[in-house]
This record gives sequence, structure tokens and C-alpha cells, in this order.
Amino acid sequence: LAKLSGYPHDPAQNDCAFGHLTSGGTLANLQALRLAFALKAFPVALRAARPPDIELPESDWEAFNLSRSSAIALLVRWRSWLQALPPAQRASWASRCERERIEWLGHTEFFARHPELRPPLVLTSGSAHYSWPKGARLVGLGAEQCIALPQRDMRVDVDALEEALARAHAQRRPVLMVVAMLGTTEFGAVDPIDEAVAARDRYANRGLGFTVHVDAAWGGYLATLFREPDGRLRPREAIAAQFQRFPTPAVHRAIAALAETDSVTIDPHKLGYLPYGAGAFICRDHRAMSLLAVDADYVFTQSAAEDYLTRYRQLGRYIPEGSKPGAMAAAVYVTHRVLPLDHERFGKLPAQTLHGAEAFVARAERFAHDCVDFVHACIPFPPDSNLVCLALNPRGNTQVDAMNRFIRRLQDEMRIDVHQPLQSREFFGSTTTLHPAQLGPDATRVLLDQLHLGSNPWDSEDRMLILRHTIMNPFLLDIENDISYIDLYFEFLARRVGCLMASEY
Amino acid sequence: LAKLSGYPHDPAQNDCAFGHLTSGGTLANLQALRLAFALKAFPVALRAARPPDIELPESDWEAFNLSRSSAIALLVRWRSWLQALPPAQRASWASRCERERIEWLGHTEFFARHPELRPPLVLTSGSAHYSWPKGARLVGLGAEQCIALPQRDMRVDVDALEEALARAHAQRRPVLMVVAMLGTTEFGAVDPIDEAVAARDRYANRGLGFTVHVDAAWGGYLATLFREPDGRLRPREAIAAQFQRFPTPAVHRAIAALAETDSVTIDPHKLGYLPYGAGAFICRDHRAMSLLAVDADYVFTQSAAEDYLTRYRQLGRYIPEGSKPGAMAAAVYVTHRVLPLDHERFGKLPAQTLHGAEAFVARAERFAHDCVDFVHACIPFPPDSNLVCLALNPRGNTQVDAMNRFIRRLQDEMRIDVHQPLQSREFFGSTTTLHPAQLGPDATRVLLDQLHLGSNPWDSEDRMLILRHTIMNPFLLDIENDISYIDLYFEFLARRVGCLMASEY
Repeated sequence: LAKLSGYPHDPAQNDCAFGHLTSGGTLANLQALRLAFALKAFPVALRAARPPDIELPESDWEAFNLSRSSAIALLVRWRSWLQALPPAQRASWASRCERERIEWLGHTEFFARHPELRPPLVLTSGSAHYSWPKGARLVGLGAEQCIALPQRDMRVDVDALEEALARAHAQRRPVLMVVAMLGTTEFGAVDPIDEAVAARDRYANRGLGFTVHVDAAWGGYLATLFREPDGRLRPREAIAAQFQRFPTPAVHRAIAALAETDSVTIDPHKLGYLPYGAGAFICRDHRAMSLLAVDADYVFTQSAAEDYLTRYRQLGRYIPEGSKPGAMAAAVYVTHRVLPLDHERFGKLPAQTLHGAEAFVARAERFAHDCVDFVHACIPFPPDSNLVCLALNPRGNTQVDAMNRFIRRLQDEMRIDVHQPLQSREFFGSTTTLHPAQLGPDATRVLLDQLHLGSNPWDSEDRMLILRHTIMNPFLLDIENDISYIDLYFEFLARRVGCLMASEY
Repeated sequence: LAKLSGYPHDPAQNDCAFGHLTSGGTLANLQALRLAFALKAFPVALRAARPPDIELPESDWEAFNLSRSSAIALLVRWRSWLQALPPAQRASWASRCERERIEWLGHTEFFARHPELRPPLVLTSGSAHYSWPKGARLVGLGAEQCIALPQRDMRVDVDALEEALARAHAQRRPVLMVVAMLGTTEFGAVDPIDEAVAARDRYANRGLGFTVHVDAAWGGYLATLFREPDGRLRPREAIAAQFQRFPTPAVHRAIAALAETDSVTIDPHKLGYLPYGAGAFICRDHRAMSLLAVDADYVFTQSAAEDYLTRYRQLGRYIPEGSKPGAMAAAVYVTHRVLPLDHERFGKLPAQTLHGAEAFVARAERFAHDCVDFVHACIPFPPDSNLVCLALNPRGNTQVDAMNRFIRRLQDEMRIDVHQPLQSREFFGSTTTLHPAQLGPDATRVLLDQLHLGSNPWDSEDRMLILRHTIMNPFLLDIENDISYIDLYFEFLARRVGCLMASEY
């Protein structure tokens, strides 16, 4: 997964990436928060410990705003300085620094000692997974510090990001990280990771340091389509030759920028096709991980003798969890060995699903045309990945609340009912809600027009219910047997819509 | 597991317990920290929001020190007051309180707004699992706030607990929780839960409120031996009739007091005999759980109409993790249905292991007698449960460092070696370290004498290495086939000791 992300992945390299499994994406995101916070706060602690011979940042503000590489360089410098000391002195200095760290003091005492600093912000998109505010609560930062940025076309609005950063910079408000989504859970949308990375580098130069984490829990494995077997990035044209529309230039730029990010969450139990219980956290440079160790490992181990693999065999010291099942690790390992994460091997799977998604979009357009006497139907926003939504408004209706009621009735026939055998359902489908703020005003206006919703459609509801289709099944287009399950689905949908329109929905 | 703990477990009861699975004990302990903190801090937030008509604690200190039941009563009162308001006002008041909560503000801002309060302490025993300091770091409280109390006879020293509480009370230092171990991971020792509960009630009356959490990750299922099928506690005599020594009066008192604690961690993947990936957190009164919900559920759901099971079907809002495999939940459910958690059914399993442990102790004494020409051997402390340790000192040696070297060599023959097939090992065994502070001075002196260690045995090492035996296998005494694997183990051990003594260990 480190290679898939474009991170250095040779353990012989000093700055090799490091990753580990978690029980799921939520804990991987939590680990991202922990690691970013530990690395941000460490230089402040080191300044407070005042070791001689080490060049330290000049102010707490500067120390709290180092880039990842500067903070790691300082950590490495400190560790080698410690190693050169006689054991008793080493332990004493190590403990002196340890007792200034935020992990020892807790947030309250740490910030009380450093009044120049305030708790940092986490900037996410409005479509970020709910694990982000949950994580901000969990680590004691507080949900208030987790800012959901405005969106445009389902992605983080880059202007809004720039504005938030400029404001933070002006107010001397630290920023912990910018979280970019690679495939939102609800819409499969891909944030402009490249823009987030560029903003990080720009603001690092202005003295506002933060990291970029990519929440690719859902979409991480799509990157297999972008990798040659040797790990090189494929040019957009090479990938696009396989598809009608995928990948958009924006999606290609986003995935190309993965290599420059600081950490990433990828869930093997989503597009890795493994059973639940396998998330993964990967950081670009493993040397920050020692800051998470429960005991101060840089004191008590012979770091010179200890190699990468030996160190991380004691995984429990670094991860948020404790003892874990080995089955998931074995499953992920075997999958990645059998189907390496490049376009020639594993990539064939997401390629099939993207073909399915493109066929779905085309078929949806035909459906919209065929059913125009009953409903106004459309794809509410062009899909970035293999997750395709469909908006349906009964002909003649101009209000969102009636449209939502219609979708709810429609989904009643597609949901699991514990009182009926699964086999009695022809298709299963889910819904999600679309808020105008996610599309932005322009795209919202276009969508309302397409659906023939009136000029004032927001009555009692502030978001519209839409059908959500996760095209994960690579066999929806069964060409050998000449069956298209996508066709069958739209035929089913047309029947249901007809029935519903005949009744009072 | 709620019934096993002696908690109210009928969902029709207002104060019914609630529990959920986690990926393991570490996350269950984390959930205990979160819930205790949320409930402790909520009354402070409510005071700050100043709703009319609700009787509030008079000071922040008082609000931060309510007992669990008083804090929950306040929460219930607040919720029903909210419910009675018209929707717009309800939302506005709910948000007003929400924005004063520590989960929203974060630790730093919360404590800045309430200067009378300081971050609370977590009191654990010195043998507590490393997930406790890890959890204190993770939630932003800081490892400094996690105090490892001195021990005596491997258990929390009650006098030390009393002293720590008296000091906190005198210094107006809040306490979040006392963590009592029901079966330490390393030694299987059982803390005096009854004394922790008594201290909690005593200090609640003095205005220092805190909760008692039991970390029964390892030992929770031992409680099955203490339960009748209808959930009643069995008297000690009834249980003791089956065994030579188990349960000691202290262990019986501890498990009897479970019902009075505030929350508990139990791992089905340990003594529940299920595969890794199943921990559980159980709180005595479910009504506090709403404080952990990601969205303010008491605003947006019709709590009157919503029953217990409907509410907790949306589990993701309450737990630290996100989507999870259903297999573990199914496995736990089926196990508990097939073998209900009482002494007549599931209890037969731990009973067998306790018979094994008692046979192990008796056989160890014979081994000590038989091998006295080679080693001084003894059980270093009487086991509370089915985890039995063995200390061995080569005859003639008086120093702990040489003894530890000997044990390390001995264990070399009992550890997994990735270069050899597993089948080449006769037995697998683990070691652990025993620190004099865990035994206390009196028991340490007795042990050093038994091992014939000199009057000044602590040379370069400050703790002794001992063999650690987790008697989980209920078939060690195979009476039908007349095989005692315990005998075979001690014969193996005698051979190994003989070989080692002949070499230079």
C-alpha cells in the first residue's frame, strides 16, 4: 500500500514509509490524527527540554509549525545526540524531553505551558467521513477544531481552503492537517489532493506548517489503475484509453499527488474486496512513528542495531489497538501477493467496475429518456469513481419534500427487510442525501432545472434524497452470457417507478 | 455479559446496562475513559449553558464531582426538559449546551473556561495493562494523569489507594476513575474491586466523585463460576466446594462487587475462547451513552418512541470504531446462547482450567522437592486465577541477573522459532518479569528466601524473570486416557533444568 501511494517503500531507505492494519478506516484516521499531533508538538517539547548542541526553532510558534521533514530531521538529530550520551545521562535527557511532550502532559497542561500556541485545526471537506469529528472529539482536540470546508462540485472548494488557511495564518491559529478525500463514502468524489499539497508547501514557507492526510478508505485501491508494475505513475492518456471518461484530469492530478502527501488511510475491506476488519494507515516517513511508542523506545533499544522489520515486529507499541487477529493481515498479504497493486494485476478489478459505472451512466441516460412521462431522472453530478448516484423527481412535482417521499417509497422495495427472505428482492439499493452546499450554487441550479423542481423547491427539507449505487461488482456486465445486470436494474426501476406513479406515493 | 457482571440487563428498565463489542480490550478500555470523561464533564457544560428550571450544581467543582447516578439524573432531567420545548427552542438550547461540552471545545478550551477544575487523574495498579497509559495519551489527558498505584501481594494496595484519594481530595485534584483489574494480563491477579467501590462511595460523600472501571479483559469469564443460571451470585462456600483453594475470600468479594461498578471490559477473545478480534465494553447504565453519540441524538430522535434496541442498532454513533465484521458478534452471540454464562454451563470451562491450575501448583511443589539438587523453585505468589507463575533459581546462585539469564536460556527451548517447525517443540511457555514493588516488601523478602537469593541480590537488574503459565486448556488433565500434560510438562522442565545446569547457562 506504501508503493501504491507512491511513498518510499524500501526498508533500507532512512525515510521509508510505514503502514499497519487497523480494524477499519476510523481507527486508521485516528492514527493519522495521533501521528500528526505527536510530530507537530514534539519540537515544542524539545525546545522546552533545552538540550545543548541542538539547533532549536526560535519560538514555540516556529516549533509548532515545522514541516514534516524539518520536524523529522529534528527528531533524528535529537535521537543521535541521545545515543552518543553515556546511558545515565541519556535516560535523564530522554525523560526530560518526554515530560514536556503533549502525550505526557495532556493537552491542557501543554497549552498552558505554551501560551503562544492554540489547539490546531483539522480542515476537512463537508463530505468527509464522520470519523473525523469523532476522532477530533476522541483525541481531546474537540469537534470545534474540525472544520468542514465548503464544497463545489462535490469536492473541497480550493478557494475556501485557501481562505481558511489565510485566516488561520493571519490569526496565528495553528493547523494540524488538511484531510483530502480520495473517494467520499457517500459519493465517491475525489478531492483536489494536488491543491492541498501545494497549499501545504506554500504555507510552510509562510511559517504555517501542517500535514496533508488522504482519507482513501473508500477509493485507495482505485490507484492501482494508475501504477505500473514498477510503481511508476501511468500518464492520464494511457489510463483514459481504456475508458470513456475516467479518469478526469482532476482525478489524475489528485492521485498523482498522493506521493507527496504525509499519510493515507486505505481500507482493504472496501475496494480491496476483503471481509470487514481490515483498514490500513500508512505514513510517508516511518521515523515519526517512534513518537507514538508507549515506552520511549529511542532510549531503550539499540537503534543502530535494530532494523526496520525488527522494530515494527513489536507492533503493539505503535498502534491504537492491542492484540489483533492475524487472519486479516494474512488475507491482505496473500491478496497483494496474488494480485499486485498495479494496473496489470489488481487494477483489472477496479477497471471492470469503472466500465460498469460508465455503462450505468449511459443506461441511466436512456432510462431518463424512456421514462420521461413518469419522472425527470438524471445523474446529479458526474461520478469521479465507481460510485454513481441517480436523482429522480416524479413528473409534475416541484417540491423536494415530495421528491424525497417518492425516493423513500422507491427504496422500500430495495432494502433489506428482516421479515422477508433476501431472495424475494430483485435488487438492493441505498440512498444518500445531497445538500446544495456540496454541489455549490451553480451546479445546484443546473440540477434543479434538470429535475424540473420549481424556483422555490426547499419546503420543509434542506437536502434531496437520491439513489446511490456502489458499482463494486465486476460482473455486472456478463458479456459471456449476454446478461447486463445494469439493464435489468433499470428495467426493474422503470417498473417500480410506473407502479409508484400509479399509486399515491 | 451485562448479566455476568451483575448489572441490570432488562432493556425495559430505565437504567439497563449497555454493552458493545470492540476489536479488543484496548479499545474497550478507551471507551471506558471516553464515557467516564463525557459523564464527568457534562454537568459542567450544562451549568455553563444555564438552562432555566433545572436545578444545577452550585459550583464547577461540584458539577465535576457528581456520582454516576447524580450525573445521569441530571442528564435525564435535561433531556426531558428539552423534549418539552418547541422544536426551534429545543435545537437552540441543545446546541447551547453542546457547545459547552468538552467534546466540542476540546480539553484546552474547556479547562480554560473552568479554571476551578484541573484534568482528572486515572488511578490504576502497577500491573494494569499498558492500554491504560496508552489510552490516557490517546484521549489527550496525558500519561502523567495515569497514576500507577503501589501494590501488595500483586494487587492494588488499598492503603495506597486511600492515600492517593485523600491527597487528591485535599489538593482539589479531580479523579476520573479508579481502574481495578480482574485478572492482570501478566499474573492473573484480582484487585480488591469491593474496596474500590467502597472508596468511590465514601469519596462521593466527601465531594470527590469518580467512577470504578473493572478491566476484566483477561478474567471476566471467570465470573461465570460465580453466577447461578438466574444471575444470582453464588456464595463462596458453594464455589469453594469444587476446588482446593479457589476462590479466596478476597477474590469472591471482588467479583461480588462487580455489580456495583460503573463499567467493565471483558474480552470474549481471551477466556471466552473465541478467536482474536472480540473485546467488549459494558456500562452499568446505558443512559450515559448518548453523550458519546457523534450527533446530538437527544435532539433529533423521538426518544419517547425510540426503544433501547432501536436506538443501539445505530451502533456506529456510539463506538470508537466504524463498520465492523459481523462474524465476531455472531460468534459471541452463539457461544453465549449455547453456553450461557453461569456455573452450570459456560462455567464448566473455567472450572476445568482452575482444576488444572490447582494441579499445576501441587505438581510444582513436587517438582521443587524433586529438583532441589539443581534449583530452588517455587510459586512466587499464590495465584488468584488460572494463571500460574513459577520462579526458578539455580542452586548456589545468589544474584538476580544470573537467575534471569538462566530463565532466558530455559525459555529458549519453549519459544516459537520461525526457523523450526512448531512440532519440534515439546512445550511452549512464556515468561514475565516480577518487580519487588508488585509483591510489596514483606512478600518479596519471603520469596527471596525461598529462592535462596542472597541478601543483596539486585545487581544490574531490578526485576526477576519468571515462567508464566496460562492454564487455558481445559484438557490438560486427560483423565479418560490417564495422561496429565502437567506431569509431562514438569518432567520436561526437570530434564531441561538438568541439561542447563550441566552446561554453562
